[in-house]
Amino acid sequence: MHFTSEQRLDDGILEREFTLGEIPGTLWTPGSAAPAPLILMAHNNGLPKAEPRLVARARYTAARGYAVATIDAAGCGDRPRSAADEQARADLRRAMQAGEPVDEIFESFIGPLVEKAVPEWQTTLDALLELPEIGGPVGYSGGWTALGIRLAVVEPRIAAAGFFAGGYVPRAQREEARQVTIPLLFLLQWDDEGNPRQRALDLFDAFGSKEKTLHANLGGHTGIPSFELEDGCRFLDRHLK
Amino acid sequence: MHFTSEQRLDDGILEREFTLGEIPGTLWTPGSAAPAPLILMAHNNGLPKAEPRLVARARYTAARGYAVATIDAAGCGDRPRSAADEQARADLRRAMQAGEPVDEIFESFIGPLVEKAVPEWQTTLDALLELPEIGGPVGYSGGWTALGIRLAVVEPRIAAAGFFAGGYVPRAQREEARQVTIPLLFLLQWDDEGNPRQRALDLFDAFGSKEKTLHANLGGHTGIPSFELEDGCRFLDRHLK
Repeated sequence: MHFTSEQRLDDGILEREFTLGEIPGTLWTPGSAAPAPLILMAHNNGLPKAEPRLVARARYTAARGYAVATIDAAGCGDRPRSAADEQARADLRRAMQAGEPVDEIFESFIGPLVEKAVPEWQTTLDALLELPEIGGPVGYSGGWTALGIRLAVVEPRIAAAGFFAGGYVPRAQREEARQVTIPLLFLLQWDDEGNPRQRALDLFDAFGSKEKTLHANLGGHTGIPSFELEDGCRFLDRHLK
Repeated sequence: MHFTSEQRLDDGILEREFTLGEIPGTLWTPGSAAPAPLILMAHNNGLPKAEPRLVARARYTAARGYAVATIDAAGCGDRPRSAADEQARADLRRAMQAGEPVDEIFESFIGPLVEKAVPEWQTTLDALLELPEIGGPVGYSGGWTALGIRLAVVEPRIAAAGFFAGGYVPRAQREEARQVTIPLLFLLQWDDEGNPRQRALDLFDAFGSKEKTLHANLGGHTGIPSFELEDGCRFLDRHLK
C-alpha cells in the first residue's frame, strides 16, 4: 500500500489517496490516536470514489471516530472498462430510452463486476488492517448492495453492514441474502425511479440476519434525507464500538 | 384539571396524576423551568395508562425535555366499557381462538372508540396548553395509530407524529390517512402476529405527508428494539424543538 497524497482536513481528519497494486483507493482516519474501527464504504459501481456524496459521507463518518476506506475496484469508477462492459452500458442506455426491460442487461454486467470487485476489496481489507491506526471490528456501508451482500457472505471480518437499496442486485446475491447473518441497516427510497419497491422489500425480508432494520423515506433515488447519515453512524456505533 | 397526586422522579421529572371531568390522565414534565413542547402519548385502547411500557416511554421522553401526557379515554384502559364493547371483545376472543376472520369485529368497536376518544384528547389538549410549564408545538406519539390519524386530521395544533403500526386501523382512518400531511415516523414490527405487513406498508404509502419515514425491525408485536425510543425522540427533536 503506497500513499500518494495526503491532506489534513479542518476537523483533524487525515485524507489519503493510496494505490495497492492496480487498485486506487482513499483512506480517511480520525484525528484521535487510538486505533479506529474500519468502515468499507463502497459506491454504485458506475461512480468514482471521488464522487462528492461519497466523500461527504466518508468525512462525516471519519469525524465520528471511524477509519473509512473506499476503492475503485476493477471496471468500477475511473478504472478502464472491458469492451463487454462498455457494450452492456450502451445496451442499457438504449433499452432505457426505448422503455424496454433492463433486468437481463443489468444481470449480464453487474454480476461479473461483483465477482471481480470482491477479491480487490478483500486485498484492500488485508492491507488496511496492517496499519497501526486501524483496529477493531469492520463494517460495510455503501450504496453498492450487491457487493455488500457478497462481502458479508465471504468475509467473516465484517461485523455489521448498512446497505442502500438503490441499485440492481443480481440474482446470485438475491439468493445468497439469506446467508447474511450480521446486523443490518437497510435504507430504501420509497419512490426510487430505478429500483422496484417490492423487490427491495423482498430483499430486506430475505436477509438471514436476526437483527435487521429498514429505514424508508419518501422521495427518489438521490433524495435520502440528511438525518440518515447520523442514523447510519448510530447503527455502526451500536455494533462496532 | 385537578392534580390528584404527584411524584418527583430521580431525574427531576415531575409525574402527576390528574382528572379532567371524567377523564383520568398522567402528566410528566421535565425538571427545567422553560415551557416544554407537549407530546400526546396514546396507547393501544385496551391497555391502561399505567401500563409499564407506556410509563417507561413517557419518562424517557420527558427526560429529553418534553412534557408528556396520556389519558384513558372513554371505554379505554381502566374506564368502564359499554355492554356492546364487552360483547365485541368476547366475540373477538372467540373468533381468534377459532381462527376465524376478525376484521369486521375490530371494525365494529375500534371505529366508535376512536370517535369517542378524539374529543376527550382535544379537551385534554386544551387544558394542558393552559399550564405555564407547557408551551410550543405539540406532537403525537403512540401505539394507537387510528386515534393518531384522526387527531392529526382534525387537530391543527399537532405538528408531527410517531405511529406504531401495531393494531387494527378502521377503514375510516385508512381512508383519511391521505389527509395527514404532518411529518411522520411510522414504526413497524416486521413479523407482527396480529398486524398484516402489507396492510401496514399500504398505510405508510397512503399518508399524504411529504416527509415520512418508515422504521421496520425484525420481530413480533412487543419486540420493538430499545434504540427506537431514541430514534423517536430524535424525530420529535427535528420537528418540535
